[in-house]
Amino acid sequence: MNLILLSPTDWTDAEHATVRDSRRLRHLLEVHKATPGDRLTVGVLDGRIGHGELLSLDADAARFRVTLEREPPAPLPVHLLLALPRPRMLARTLEHTAALGVKRLTLLHTRRVEKSYWQSPELNPEKIHQHLMLGLEQARDTRLPTVTLEPRFKPFVEDRLPALTAGRRALIAHPGMASACPRGITDDTLLAIGPEGGFVDYEVERLVDAGFEGIHLGERILRVETAVTALLSRLF
Amino acid sequence: MNLILLSPTDWTDAEHATVRDSRRLRHLLEVHKATPGDRLTVGVLDGRIGHGELLSLDADAARFRVTLEREPPAPLPVHLLLALPRPRMLARTLEHTAALGVKRLTLLHTRRVEKSYWQSPELNPEKIHQHLMLGLEQARDTRLPTVTLEPRFKPFVEDRLPALTAGRRALIAHPGMASACPRGITDDTLLAIGPEGGFVDYEVERLVDAGFEGIHLGERILRVETAVTALLSRLF
Repeated sequence: MNLILLSPTDWTDAEHATVRDSRRLRHLLEVHKATPGDRLTVGVLDGRIGHGELLSLDADAARFRVTLEREPPAPLPVHLLLALPRPRMLARTLEHTAALGVKRLTLLHTRRVEKSYWQSPELNPEKIHQHLMLGLEQARDTRLPTVTLEPRFKPFVEDRLPALTAGRRALIAHPGMASACPRGITDDTLLAIGPEGGFVDYEVERLVDAGFEGIHLGERILRVETAVTALLSRLF
Repeated sequence: MNLILLSPTDWTDAEHATVRDSRRLRHLLEVHKATPGDRLTVGVLDGRIGHGELLSLDADAARFRVTLEREPPAPLPVHLLLALPRPRMLARTLEHTAALGVKRLTLLHTRRVEKSYWQSPELNPEKIHQHLMLGLEQARDTRLPTVTLEPRFKPFVEDRLPALTAGRRALIAHPGMASACPRGITDDTLLAIGPEGGFVDYEVERLVDAGFEGIHLGERILRVETAVTALLSRLF
């Protein structure tokens, strides 16, 4: 927790906030070993970043006087279109992508996504929110990503994909594609990444028909969570 | 398991290999759902890659006729000098770095590494070997990385670091350093990455004195496992 992310309910007046949940209190007590007078990095959910002077801390509450100073880090110019990972990997991927600065994420069904993954409790909105918040706290960011679920491939591609590709560079990362992953681009980008085992040929064809350029990361086949980080870091 | 990695003990003659361990047999039966006649990607530990024709498969053994065709993917030109991560993250980091093509890894003690991490069973040579093998199988590589443990910072820096920096570009990735992480370099590189919480100032100074250039990945603070993948993917 490199930033204490304040939700609207944490504020007691315009300059003061109180943290009461056990997760953050425990972190302040056990990891930060914070004591009154300490200055800690704080941010306002979807708002600015600054510091909080710790006024008091006990097992029930931490009270801060908050001063906001700067904007959060710039988001990545990307909408990530990701085949739904298996639940344990989904949790980590939500944290990684939020920490890396992804603000728009669509989780998509593809042939090689097991149907049971769509029943996972990890897809509950509260669980998704928790993982995104952990990623923001890690990276010192405040802007909450939006996550959209698309449990059917074909209706998504036919009905909603055109609006996502409009005005964006669309890239599909898939082993064996023609072009090496470009480096350091600044285009507003829609980036599609398949599941473990990859997209099937039909899915690649549909996305290429929809205007996606195929890119690859070389001969090595990476786990989805590694590939997501590697692609985002190389592209932007 | 995108490649069946054959150890010397798996060979029965110059063209045939038999896999007998339960992990790989279960994977062949349950994930690949392999049947005799199937061609699967195989590789020889520290050697070439090709295919294996499955001759027979039951609960005790999988027999292959092996044909080797090509060299494994090129290694990354990097020696990674990594502060020892906490045990669970170490396991994943070993897999990620092996999959990404790191061949030389030194795990280093620094001030913010908890001393207890050095007692973890994850540091047993057999456990390290297992995680590296999983990374190679994932990425379709055969060359086993070497891992060196350096449980004392100062003797390492004074006695053994000069031999590692000689003839290499040395980079230390640390938040707040002067230069942005370079992209697409081909230099033989020694890359130092700190623990959760970072190197302490004294350690940064010692490494800079030893010839390291400071680099950063931007404002965001990433978990070590995310930072390792992001740095390797952007640098090489």
